[in-house]
Amino acid sequence: MTKAAPGSKSMTAAEWWARDDLHYENGRLIFAGEDTAELAGRYHRPLFVYGAERIRANLARLRRALAATGCDHRLYYAMKCNRYAPILRLLAREGIGVDICSPDEMDLALDCGFAAADISFTGTGVADRDLERLLVQPALHINCDSLSQIRRIGERMPGRTIGIRVNPGFGTGYGDNARLTYAGSRTTKFGIYREQWAEALALADKHDLTVTTLHFHVGCGYLSQQLDAWEQAVGAAADFLADLPDVTTVNLGGGLGLPHRAGEAPLDLDRWSAIVARHFAKGANRRGLTVAAEPGDYLVKDAGLLLLSVVGVEMKRDTLFVSVDGGFNLHPEPAHYELPCEPVACVARDTNRTRWPPVTVAGNINEALDLWMEDHPMPPLEEGDRIALINAGGYGSAMASNHCMRGAFTELLI
Amino acid sequence: MTKAAPGSKSMTAAEWWARDDLHYENGRLIFAGEDTAELAGRYHRPLFVYGAERIRANLARLRRALAATGCDHRLYYAMKCNRYAPILRLLAREGIGVDICSPDEMDLALDCGFAAADISFTGTGVADRDLERLLVQPALHINCDSLSQIRRIGERMPGRTIGIRVNPGFGTGYGDNARLTYAGSRTTKFGIYREQWAEALALADKHDLTVTTLHFHVGCGYLSQQLDAWEQAVGAAADFLADLPDVTTVNLGGGLGLPHRAGEAPLDLDRWSAIVARHFAKGANRRGLTVAAEPGDYLVKDAGLLLLSVVGVEMKRDTLFVSVDGGFNLHPEPAHYELPCEPVACVARDTNRTRWPPVTVAGNINEALDLWMEDHPMPPLEEGDRIALINAGGYGSAMASNHCMRGAFTELLI
Repeated sequence: MTKAAPGSKSMTAAEWWARDDLHYENGRLIFAGEDTAELAGRYHRPLFVYGAERIRANLARLRRALAATGCDHRLYYAMKCNRYAPILRLLAREGIGVDICSPDEMDLALDCGFAAADISFTGTGVADRDLERLLVQPALHINCDSLSQIRRIGERMPGRTIGIRVNPGFGTGYGDNARLTYAGSRTTKFGIYREQWAEALALADKHDLTVTTLHFHVGCGYLSQQLDAWEQAVGAAADFLADLPDVTTVNLGGGLGLPHRAGEAPLDLDRWSAIVARHFAKGANRRGLTVAAEPGDYLVKDAGLLLLSVVGVEMKRDTLFVSVDGGFNLHPEPAHYELPCEPVACVARDTNRTRWPPVTVAGNINEALDLWMEDHPMPPLEEGDRIALINAGGYGSAMASNHCMRGAFTELLI
Repeated sequence: MTKAAPGSKSMTAAEWWARDDLHYENGRLIFAGEDTAELAGRYHRPLFVYGAERIRANLARLRRALAATGCDHRLYYAMKCNRYAPILRLLAREGIGVDICSPDEMDLALDCGFAAADISFTGTGVADRDLERLLVQPALHINCDSLSQIRRIGERMPGRTIGIRVNPGFGTGYGDNARLTYAGSRTTKFGIYREQWAEALALADKHDLTVTTLHFHVGCGYLSQQLDAWEQAVGAAADFLADLPDVTTVNLGGGLGLPHRAGEAPLDLDRWSAIVARHFAKGANRRGLTVAAEPGDYLVKDAGLLLLSVVGVEMKRDTLFVSVDGGFNLHPEPAHYELPCEPVACVARDTNRTRWPPVTVAGNINEALDLWMEDHPMPPLEEGDRIALINAGGYGSAMASNHCMRGAFTELLI
């Protein structure tokens, strides 16, 4: 793993994640131009570090894919993925919008430089007190997820424009992970189904609401092998357009995935663009529509690392444990969603010098499930070494808790 | 459900959880002498409400069970279960100790009235900077979970007394839930196994550390049907005593369970006491030992409700959803641990008056898994009604996150 010649960028099967801004140089992990071990050494707590260039690269790639559809297009960053203010300010400066799901997220978006007209609210379980705070902003776009939201907005602000989130009844997600299925054979809480569609239209009509956006979110973390299923769901969602003469925007939701494990390929954006064009580009059967998307992970997940310190290396029965100073409460996805943040050594010692088995990397929370990865090949590690958890930029700090009062961390955008 | 005569305390199969301090009176849910609907109406955010009398009753029951063992005994409350300061102060006043797993928990315990001598630390993934903070308190008891901890304490404070947490290699837990198994056929990160035992003893000896406590934690949420498995693990842990001439205390860990679903019976404490006595009471083969336990859930879980407001009631496709103003980020156990907090109506309208199917109770977080309970029989509910999630006193607020910026809540001890 560390046999690269001085100055070279090694790239072995074990380093499936390597790329220009994240790779080994002389056995040292470099991220965004920084030596990760040195960087971590300057901080005293678990450190989330994000790379602005990688976020911009992800954004540019997605913009190109949207442009390739031939449609007018618009991006809204899903704030719930990562609300670290410097990231929000960066994205506001890049000129994209933001998707929010609570009034507190609206306030933060405004404070970070997004104009109300660039904010899209797509929430569930919306309380009256939520609506009262949201409706203060007339330019805020609201995608209604339920009949109740349509009715209550109509009662408060007849004549307003709204979006409607529909649920086509099927969807897809990362590795067909049931925890991440937002539309499928099981009825979910999201969106309005075909069975309640007539009632939704009648409610909008009754309150003189103009439906300008059709919204759906039919997958989470989908990769190329899920694109066929995704297209099927997109097609079913597009069928709702026939009843919406005033719609100007179709919002595809988020859910664009990225590789989490060796062997997974990046999402094929050419195919993705072609699907979007096939269903929404201007043509014989379609008036001109703006296509919007709400990516979260796709923009920021692989632009973030969580840097931790090794606090113990020892055999327990038959297993070599590497203990680190941060647990699943700082990033719940590996423990709770089967979405790994693969541990990578910040300094890779030569595995050939030492007999060193695959390890289990464990956090510092008193729960059995607090393991970052089991049976994981890593170079030899010692107390005091640093490791990087990759793909830690999304749904990490945003979902962190203070469980066991081990919730302290630092964040940094470079 | 609500057909009880005025003033009577109804008790039907649906109310398996009913007890003196939690029951319906005239169709209104009473907890700790308070009308829960009225109580919730006085607050503006999701409300965790805890009952001091129930905590005291749980404590008294467990003290009787420990007394029945014939051993000297000691309780340490597992702070990680719920660190709401008024609960900590209550337990400190009751004269029990507290078990902690991080330096910040130590500071909070001291601030809430526990003396250092009444604090027991049992941590994992312990960093040097953790040890430096912990060792400031010479009276603090530390149970070492790893060889590394023994060595590093010995290097810093040779001659200190310590406990050793052992792992007997098997254990049990609630419903044999794999997520809650702390010792079992799979090697866990907790404790020192028989395979490393000689090394642990040698390290303690080298640094002149006196081992005064044998600690183990071999199950989480166990009920009567798991007691046979629990005894087997206890017996295997007790075998380690033969090598520890200076031990005065055996710490049984926590994990005593309570019913979460209709049909589950409370843990049989008589059988539990008999098991403890069989292995640790003074007798032909056993010198006098103090028996300690570290309950968390057993003391506070059923003494807490989470009160939420209904913000929507509507059909989605074939399912009736009751949406509420709090999600799994306020209490992760139902979504992530398969440990339900059963939703109960604060005011139970007559089910016979309305055709009302079982419902799915959903939270306000934009994740498909954010459901409190599916296919759950409840009395008719309307927007603005309140519901209580029962058994919400443990690992709820303590593990809460601000996901989607919907993390606000209020806590109250009555």
